[in-house]
Amino acid sequence: MDNAQRISGVLSPVVTPFKADLSPDLERFVRQCRWLLSQNVGLAAFGTNSEANSLSVEERIELLERLVGAGLDTARMMPGTGCCALPDTVRLTAHAVKLGCAGALMLPPFYYKGLSDDGLFRSFAEVIERVGEARLRVYLYHIPPVAQVPITLGVVERLLKAYPAQTAGMKDSSGDWNNTKAFLDAFAKSGFDVFAGSETFLLRNMRGGGAGCISATANVNPGPIARLFDAWQAADADAQQARLDDIRGSFAKFPMIPALKAAIAHYGHDAPWATVRPPLVALTAEQAKALVAELEQKTFAMPGLAGR
Amino acid sequence: MDNAQRISGVLSPVVTPFKADLSPDLERFVRQCRWLLSQNVGLAAFGTNSEANSLSVEERIELLERLVGAGLDTARMMPGTGCCALPDTVRLTAHAVKLGCAGALMLPPFYYKGLSDDGLFRSFAEVIERVGEARLRVYLYHIPPVAQVPITLGVVERLLKAYPAQTAGMKDSSGDWNNTKAFLDAFAKSGFDVFAGSETFLLRNMRGGGAGCISATANVNPGPIARLFDAWQAADADAQQARLDDIRGSFAKFPMIPALKAAIAHYGHDAPWATVRPPLVALTAEQAKALVAELEQKTFAMPGLAGR
Repeated sequence: MDNAQRISGVLSPVVTPFKADLSPDLERFVRQCRWLLSQNVGLAAFGTNSEANSLSVEERIELLERLVGAGLDTARMMPGTGCCALPDTVRLTAHAVKLGCAGALMLPPFYYKGLSDDGLFRSFAEVIERVGEARLRVYLYHIPPVAQVPITLGVVERLLKAYPAQTAGMKDSSGDWNNTKAFLDAFAKSGFDVFAGSETFLLRNMRGGGAGCISATANVNPGPIARLFDAWQAADADAQQARLDDIRGSFAKFPMIPALKAAIAHYGHDAPWATVRPPLVALTAEQAKALVAELEQKTFAMPGLAGR
Repeated sequence: MDNAQRISGVLSPVVTPFKADLSPDLERFVRQCRWLLSQNVGLAAFGTNSEANSLSVEERIELLERLVGAGLDTARMMPGTGCCALPDTVRLTAHAVKLGCAGALMLPPFYYKGLSDDGLFRSFAEVIERVGEARLRVYLYHIPPVAQVPITLGVVERLLKAYPAQTAGMKDSSGDWNNTKAFLDAFAKSGFDVFAGSETFLLRNMRGGGAGCISATANVNPGPIARLFDAWQAADADAQQARLDDIRGSFAKFPMIPALKAAIAHYGHDAPWATVRPPLVALTAEQAKALVAELEQKTFAMPGLAGR
């Protein structure tokens, strides 16, 4: 697999639907993923916004198998596979590769804090060695506000040296453009694909040599975000970015995951979508109403969602 | 089970031995646990210092079954069962109850940050409801420096109200005596058992109405710590505490988990004990030497370890 064939563009950390008993709703999940693909958005299933860390390894395996079984394109899939425990990460990553997924989005082991670069390098190296697949493409997931364990320039440098084919890129959810720029400047030219952690930085990331973005709000505003990826060199790119930022701003006023689900429930006429797993809490009826009122004012829409 | 029969005293978050291939070493684990019990220290297996969050659910189940199969006393066991994902916590907790363990030490779901009291309450409540065992005894595990998700007074109050029998106590690893005191003052009289998160606060905790401590260094200095628990009202209690603090100080100069394992490897004449799982890194030879040199100076010993 050369770099030209690597996954790029806009990906969604697909929100995971739950039934009333809090078990994953496999059918709604497949329908949602199919809709996202129809909007030209790829599937970074099992990201932070997927409540992936509230799912067991077995649940993730079952959900991914259901997508593949439904005939969805594995070339557009970059499932999250990074867990606290080495054997879990190895198992999920090997499974994703076996199913033919384009990549694996890998959190660092995130329980123990203050890790050394050496420990972090060894963690990723052990996964790559144990999976033992030439076609594995690892995307390191840097999200210090949540994981509290950062991915450093030094760790990426060591991984690129030891595993140049497998060390494919990263998602930067630091929320700090200077950090994204530092990784772009250091590694983009050597074929390391940097995805911004939200569309807020999509245009800057593309101008800086990045590969796209993986964003929470790609769950609800997929088409327009994917359009900016396609048209980032167009004359109206900055205006497109401003419109994306405006929509994102409405979601950012609420807890993000419950807000995404509330919007899907509302615009999809599908109330069960609002369900979240503990420790998260769904929006109150008042919050959901306020979110929708604000989106209506901005003539926001989710085309094709209701009929999916 | 009334309160008089509840587990108390000094417990060790038992360090987990690994083989060269990084798989758990079941036999060394049983030997170590047997030795700790012989020192009058209970088994809070699968704590932070056990590298529990580097173990899969299946690995924890196998390790616990091996202990019980070896005939070790389940009345002295409080295994860690709290994971990020609800089904994992339910599975491990139900398993611990089924085996007859005295309690389950439960981390909050620790990936998502900034949780509401409501979300946290619902997390624990779902576990208690789904396990559905009258004899379940939950010990909430407050360790904000690592988990970054605190257990609040409000959550404990709600849990005590909703599940008075199951909400048995907590381990406070905040490192902040004022916090421990706040929980003692609020709940100790109603039978809620507060364990200090290290022997540093053992004497203060006992004087304040606490139930004991669960401490990393109970892995290496079990006898003397257990002795202070028994003798906390004796005339030399403060002198005993000072001696414990002095020994702990030597370990605290190094990364704690690798230091504990280095000491067991040295005093047990059993080099494989030094192995840690990534993302942790073993002490260097120089660090291990420095640790032992300091302990020798303090005439530290681990009686019975070498022949265990």
